[in-house]
Amino acid sequence: MELQLSALWVMLSAILVILMQGGFIMLEAGSTRMKNAGHVAGKTIFTFGLATIVYWAVGWGFAYGSDSNPFIGFGDFFYNPFGLDDGSLPMSVAFLFQFAFAAISLTIAWGGFAERGKLAAYLIFTVLFTAFIYPVISHWIWGGGFLAEDGAQDFAGSTVVHLTGAMAALAATILLKPRIGKFNKDGSANELPGHNQVFTTIGVLILWVGWFGFNAGSTLGIDEAFFSGYVAFNTQLAAGAAAIVALLVAWAFTGKADIGTMLNGALAGLVAITASCAFVEPGAAVVIGMVAGALVFFSMKFFEKMKIDDPIYALSVHGAIGIWGTLANGLFATKELAEDTVGVGTAGLFYGGGFGQLWVQIESVVIAGAYAFVLSFVFLLIIKKIVGLRVTEEQEIMGLDLSEHGTYGYPEQMKSASGSTTVKG
Amino acid sequence: MELQLSALWVMLSAILVILMQGGFIMLEAGSTRMKNAGHVAGKTIFTFGLATIVYWAVGWGFAYGSDSNPFIGFGDFFYNPFGLDDGSLPMSVAFLFQFAFAAISLTIAWGGFAERGKLAAYLIFTVLFTAFIYPVISHWIWGGGFLAEDGAQDFAGSTVVHLTGAMAALAATILLKPRIGKFNKDGSANELPGHNQVFTTIGVLILWVGWFGFNAGSTLGIDEAFFSGYVAFNTQLAAGAAAIVALLVAWAFTGKADIGTMLNGALAGLVAITASCAFVEPGAAVVIGMVAGALVFFSMKFFEKMKIDDPIYALSVHGAIGIWGTLANGLFATKELAEDTVGVGTAGLFYGGGFGQLWVQIESVVIAGAYAFVLSFVFLLIIKKIVGLRVTEEQEIMGLDLSEHGTYGYPEQMKSASGSTTVKG
Amino acid sequence: MELQLSALWVMLSAILVILMQGGFIMLEAGSTRMKNAGHVAGKTIFTFGLATIVYWAVGWGFAYGSDSNPFIGFGDFFYNPFGLDDGSLPMSVAFLFQFAFAAISLTIAWGGFAERGKLAAYLIFTVLFTAFIYPVISHWIWGGGFLAEDGAQDFAGSTVVHLTGAMAALAATILLKPRIGKFNKDGSANELPGHNQVFTTIGVLILWVGWFGFNAGSTLGIDEAFFSGYVAFNTQLAAGAAAIVALLVAWAFTGKADIGTMLNGALAGLVAITASCAFVEPGAAVVIGMVAGALVFFSMKFFEKMKIDDPIYALSVHGAIGIWGTLANGLFATKELAEDTVGVGTAGLFYGGGFGQLWVQIESVVIAGAYAFVLSFVFLLIIKKIVGLRVTEEQEIMGLDLSEHGTYGYPEQMKSASGSTTVKG
Repeated sequence: MELQLSALWVMLSAILVILMQGGFIMLEAGSTRMKNAGHVAGKTIFTFGLATIVYWAVGWGFAYGSDSNPFIGFGDFFYNPFGLDDGSLPMSVAFLFQFAFAAISLTIAWGGFAERGKLAAYLIFTVLFTAFIYPVISHWIWGGGFLAEDGAQDFAGSTVVHLTGAMAALAATILLKPRIGKFNKDGSANELPGHNQVFTTIGVLILWVGWFGFNAGSTLGIDEAFFSGYVAFNTQLAAGAAAIVALLVAWAFTGKADIGTMLNGALAGLVAITASCAFVEPGAAVVIGMVAGALVFFSMKFFEKMKIDDPIYALSVHGAIGIWGTLANGLFATKELAEDTVGVGTAGLFYGGGFGQLWVQIESVVIAGAYAFVLSFVFLLIIKKIVGLRVTEEQEIMGLDLSEHGTYGYPEQMKSASGSTTVKG
Repeated sequence: MELQLSALWVMLSAILVILMQGGFIMLEAGSTRMKNAGHVAGKTIFTFGLATIVYWAVGWGFAYGSDSNPFIGFGDFFYNPFGLDDGSLPMSVAFLFQFAFAAISLTIAWGGFAERGKLAAYLIFTVLFTAFIYPVISHWIWGGGFLAEDGAQDFAGSTVVHLTGAMAALAATILLKPRIGKFNKDGSANELPGHNQVFTTIGVLILWVGWFGFNAGSTLGIDEAFFSGYVAFNTQLAAGAAAIVALLVAWAFTGKADIGTMLNGALAGLVAITASCAFVEPGAAVVIGMVAGALVFFSMKFFEKMKIDDPIYALSVHGAIGIWGTLANGLFATKELAEDTVGVGTAGLFYGGGFGQLWVQIESVVIAGAYAFVLSFVFLLIIKKIVGLRVTEEQEIMGLDLSEHGTYGYPEQMKSASGSTTVKG
Repeated sequence: MELQLSALWVMLSAILVILMQGGFIMLEAGSTRMKNAGHVAGKTIFTFGLATIVYWAVGWGFAYGSDSNPFIGFGDFFYNPFGLDDGSLPMSVAFLFQFAFAAISLTIAWGGFAERGKLAAYLIFTVLFTAFIYPVISHWIWGGGFLAEDGAQDFAGSTVVHLTGAMAALAATILLKPRIGKFNKDGSANELPGHNQVFTTIGVLILWVGWFGFNAGSTLGIDEAFFSGYVAFNTQLAAGAAAIVALLVAWAFTGKADIGTMLNGALAGLVAITASCAFVEPGAAVVIGMVAGALVFFSMKFFEKMKIDDPIYALSVHGAIGIWGTLANGLFATKELAEDTVGVGTAGLFYGGGFGQLWVQIESVVIAGAYAFVLSFVFLLIIKKIVGLRVTEEQEIMGLDLSEHGTYGYPEQMKSASGSTTVKG
């Protein structure tokens, strides 16, 4: 009965993580302009679909294939999990859960392509990322690889999922260069506001809901004390604290209680607690969230000052905060939770563990981050040479809905705006 | 295994109730005007975040703290549930479930602030409501307080959650006064229609889905016969019956099959059955829903005639129907369900129980309603004196997106509408 | 404990299937024009509500009533499931799950009414379909009826749910005739694009998520190996394969990577695998999805060429692909899964089973399809004679929001578009 109970919980968690794709659809569409809305939303479905097939064919094998070494898994390609389990979970459920995480990491990467990436580039990069980038990093930390052997603590993926996706986004945004109109010749930045804050908000709420599957499902089963409940509890605290701190920081520093920053604050709290939700006390979860809420604001300012265009704020929310979340374990992990409950790594600096775990956390951030960035950069450079990464200037101004897909996502409103027809027909 | 199974069910129910915040985001945004949409949607996230921290710090303690008396709980502030359970549920899960309800009650209260409340007022009232209003009422009825001792039947919160939130909304709307343009000098009312019925509709559907967690999760566990299934069954019947009756009543009385009334009807059915879902037969659930569907229509007309501005219809859907739902138990509760199955109170008037239970239900409506109204009124009056409750006339006309947050929620559409630029850029 | 575990899983699956109504709300609203958006979205709530009451009163009895014969069930009208179970599931949960499927089939049927159906026709047809059409077909295949006796394989309803709904849609669209402006006098077709691809996309994602309940919940319980996980795994593979193939086929044949076709491709993969998710190997699931992705594109072209107006593509996605999905079992079912695991029917043509199962599949498509079409046609013809099916030309041009419900779904945008007022008020 235990296997079935665990299967049920992880299966439902996988469904919640898949629901997060809907959160990203709304978040990304809301954060970009009307002329690109159909493209931004729709591309998530086809890259999600393609990632399914690639992860099934090879990604799962490189991550968790049975013939593995510390650097990569091998085997179990074109996986058939029928009737198999690993003693605690049916393999069909394990696959779905792990795949759902791979797909989230990929979707995070799209932040770096937004409003100017070519359709073909999306398709090719989906294959490469899902086959060669994400699975390898997940093998290192979750698949018994060399970082796992070092005791790296990343419960649900501040590094594996969020930092990996953000590093791909960083490579993309460097190679693609900023959107037309984002930066002026004098180096100052313009706002290119997203077209629908209701979409952005519901996107964040859906992500928040899905995060309970993401974090609490990463127990990969149900133990006697239902540890998943505690993980979810910490997740909620960090997210709440971060949303409020981000709002107050934006209010204090800019004089306006910016909704966008607050929403990014909530997400930052969730990203930050992802690594440490199972390793820290509730008070520490609140502190981790508060720091994330403030940090995401300054990170957003920093990237803008660096003239790096980050339309969906992936570099700040998932990158900078992914790093903070991973390092936070090295500061706040308690002996009771790390050693006795989860059984990964040791206590952090503030809880009597010295610098040891912090060092391991830095190691995993640096190695995983570098791998994800370098490989993404190389892959994207090759794509750029062969098919190109960015649409033409004319296409970008026209919008990707029309240039990449042939129709507006909002045909009536776009026509109405251009004055050529009314919506009365 | 029983604790884990119950934990799993209540945990998932808590997630469904948290998803209901998304329902309110869409419902409220859809029911208000474009110029306020970013604010209306976004404020739900930061008040939800702030409520998390307040409920963790003190709210839970006042509701369920270990050192309690019939009037208030005490203790367990800044709660750490690690490894604790109450014999049937892990405390982490119990906390999340109860918190999710507190947050829904708060979100209902915002109906009274809509389209004119000041940001600072939202933040301060979130703290006061989540610390001192909701927890106390939930202690009285669900935490072993004096109304519980009297046998008050409120299975999932027609009174505790819905009436409490609606009473706060009533206090707010009285103190804030109607929106500019709502009532003419001759006392007649204008429609200020919400800007997006698709949003309102998906909001209602999300609430409907979440309500299965809300009601069926309030079993707080899984018994031998899976009583939760029966509770969910009654919930579905009442909601369905109410939606149709509301549509037909609106059609009959106004000549138009008003979508908004029908949507409020569905919600009214859900609110009404919330108290009694575990206490009544299926046929009674249908009748309770039908009455709710009709009542909500007349209640909406009544408040408009009283010149009380209720933009999201919180007073009708959650207030009037919260009362109806609570009283319905005193009419329809059966001996078998109330005494033998749930073990709270006795049969209602129509099922051989006489007036006894009805009287208890009236008592809990009056006492809880009065407490919520008076305390909300006093708190809001103090806020009004110190920081103010309502934006200026100029700000209200401009819209809260711009005045409270510095940017439009729909920057392209608002600019386009004002004629100053097009969306072509 | 097994009954409770199964109850929990099927209950949550029922909730997921009910969530699919939200997917259809967004998909249909996004696929139609602004002037009809409030109507298109809102009508789903009231037909869902009405279907609840009708299925409770008579539908369940005709499908699964205790006094049944091979052609129809009888008994258990106005059903009260309190305390009942069938040995593996509480009847309250069984009811909710089966009702949720009936409601999906009904919602599919609305594709044939879109943008021109009269409100009264929706209400009357809801009663007839939910009482007399869907329950009878579900009895034949899932309720021990004559097709079940023949060994018809339809695990989660490619025929029972999707084809049935699509046949009703076909009858409706034939009787209603095409929308004004869809076809020119020379027989060529115009595009009447839906107004919001973000809505359409999030609708598809919600449907995809809900489909895990739809397919994997159709195990109706949890067995030792958690077979539901395997079913979900196959579902994901087919959907992913279909989305990509549809995109590529559209790109190849029309020169544009049409978002709408790709979204219909994802749905087609889900519809196709619905019958066979429990009967086939993963590689076959991918092939079934790929064929569905291509087929849906050509089916859409075919119906347009036939001058059949199919605004939401119900005839292609649920009709043509519902047939493909059902027949695919007769090709790809394996002996191990069909005979040893599920225990329904035999292996398919490509897996050593000969033509036997394929013939049974054809039989069930023809009989169920004919029943659904003929009965729908007759019912709708009667409705047409008595109250009419279609709004007037003037009402259709004005839009159903105004003509059927008295208010626009987007009051500010519609007014703005018509130039009479601005949104500044």
